[in-house]
Amino acid sequence: MVESVTFSAIPDIPMIEPGDDLVDIVLSAVTRAEADIQTGDVFIIAQKVFSKAEGRYAVLEEVEPTAEAVTLGEATEKDPRLVQLILSESKEVLRHRPGVIIVAHRLGYVMANAGIDASNIGASNGREQVLLLPVDPDASAEAFRDAIKKATGQDVGVIMSDSVGRAWRSGTVGIALGAAGVPSMADLRGDLDLFGRPLQSSIVGFADEVAAAGSLLQGQGAEGAPVVLARGLKMPWEAAPASVLIRDIAEDLFR
Amino acid sequence: MVESVTFSAIPDIPMIEPGDDLVDIVLSAVTRAEADIQTGDVFIIAQKVFSKAEGRYAVLEEVEPTAEAVTLGEATEKDPRLVQLILSESKEVLRHRPGVIIVAHRLGYVMANAGIDASNIGASNGREQVLLLPVDPDASAEAFRDAIKKATGQDVGVIMSDSVGRAWRSGTVGIALGAAGVPSMADLRGDLDLFGRPLQSSIVGFADEVAAAGSLLQGQGAEGAPVVLARGLKMPWEAAPASVLIRDIAEDLFR
Repeated sequence: MVESVTFSAIPDIPMIEPGDDLVDIVLSAVTRAEADIQTGDVFIIAQKVFSKAEGRYAVLEEVEPTAEAVTLGEATEKDPRLVQLILSESKEVLRHRPGVIIVAHRLGYVMANAGIDASNIGASNGREQVLLLPVDPDASAEAFRDAIKKATGQDVGVIMSDSVGRAWRSGTVGIALGAAGVPSMADLRGDLDLFGRPLQSSIVGFADEVAAAGSLLQGQGAEGAPVVLARGLKMPWEAAPASVLIRDIAEDLFR
Repeated sequence: MVESVTFSAIPDIPMIEPGDDLVDIVLSAVTRAEADIQTGDVFIIAQKVFSKAEGRYAVLEEVEPTAEAVTLGEATEKDPRLVQLILSESKEVLRHRPGVIIVAHRLGYVMANAGIDASNIGASNGREQVLLLPVDPDASAEAFRDAIKKATGQDVGVIMSDSVGRAWRSGTVGIALGAAGVPSMADLRGDLDLFGRPLQSSIVGFADEVAAAGSLLQGQGAEGAPVVLARGLKMPWEAAPASVLIRDIAEDLFR
C-alpha cells in the first residue's frame, strides 16, 4: 500500500477583516468546497490571515520614528516610520544593508523586517498601513484548534505559516510561526538505521516542513489561497508549539 | 474545485548498491505498488540513494589525515580521517565547535560535515565507510529524468533531496541538492497582490519546499522510503537546476 499525504488549498477564502471569526470563515469555505475535516488533518494557515483577523495593523503616518530609526532608515533606504515599527517588534538588529534589515523578532524568529508586511494589505482611509505578526502565534494556533474541536468534534493540527528568507540559500520557504496539536519537531534520536545503528542527525523540523509544503499551494499573489489542509501526515511524536523550533542563542553559530 | 498536491512514498525500494540502475529499480517499485507515472509528476529522491548507486563511498582506514585535519579533529572531537574527507569535499570551514563542522561544500551548499553520512551505510569487508554527496547532483537528477523519459515517455521532474540543519532554527529540513525539469525558484516578481500592487518578497525556493514536503514521507530510519512521488504541483516557471538556490557569497550576510 502506498502511503500518501495530500495538501489541498481551500478555495474562496474571503478578504479577512479585523474581528472576523476565522474558524467560522474557514469552516464555511470547507463546506462550500464540499470538503470535510477529519481528526488528524492539519491546517496550514498563512500568518497574514491571523494578523488581519487580530487587527495587527499599524498606520505609518501615526508612527514617530526615533533617531535610531531615522539613522537605520537612511542606511537601509527604508521609510523611517517602517523602520521604527521593525525596531519596536524586535529584540536585536542582526544585519542590515540597503533594502534589508534582518532582526531577531521579539519572539525569537530571525527574519527580515520583523515579518512586517505591506503586500495584500490595502489602505486605511487612504492612509498607508502595514501588518505586524500576531502577538502570540502559538496561542493563535491553539485557539483556532480549540474552536475547530468545539465546532466539529474533530481533533486537528494547526500551523501558522510564513514565508521567510534564509542564510546561504536564495528564495523564501514556508516556516511555522505558530503550531498547535502537531509535533513541531520530530525527534528520531534513539531510532536505528537500516543497519541497526543509532541515527545521527535526527531531529527534524517537522512543522517547518509541513509549512513549506503548504506554501506550495498558498501562492503569494492575487490568487490568495491562504488556507491549506493536509491529510495523511504521520505524527507519532509529542505535540509541541512552534516556539521549540527557535534555536537557543547559545547554540546558534550564525548570530 | 479544490486544488491538491499528493505526495506518495514508493514502497519497497531495495538497498541500493554501487552500479545499480536507479531508474530500473524505481520503475519496478512503482509497478509493484500498482502506481503509475505521469507527465508533470515530480520525484523527490534522497541523496543517499544516488550516492550509493554512484559508489561515493570512502573507507576511513584508507584516509591519511593532514595536520590540518588532525587539529580540527581535536577541536571538534571527530575522527581526523572523517575530518580529512570533510575538508576534501569543502571550499571553506565556516564554523566549528565540538561535534560540529559547518562548511561550504565544494558545490556551494552550506552544511554540516560536507553532507558526509555514516547512517544507513554499512561496512565494507568489516571496514568502516562513509558516503559522500554525488559528484554533480544536478547532473544526476537530469540523467534520472532523461532515463525516465526514455523508459516511459513521461516528462517528470526530479529533485535530489537531503536533510540539513539551518541557522537560527532547530531541526533539519529537506532541501534540493539537485533538480531537473522543475523550477528550482518560483519568481513571483511582477505579480500583483490582492490590491494590484507589486509583490514584495517574491522569489520562492520552490524546489526546497518540494524537497521539504517529500522529506515528510521519506523518514530517516529503518523504514527507509527514499523515493517519493509528487502529483499535482503547479509549476508555471522556467525549469532550472538546484544550483540556482545557492546564494551568491557577495549577497550572503551570514557567511
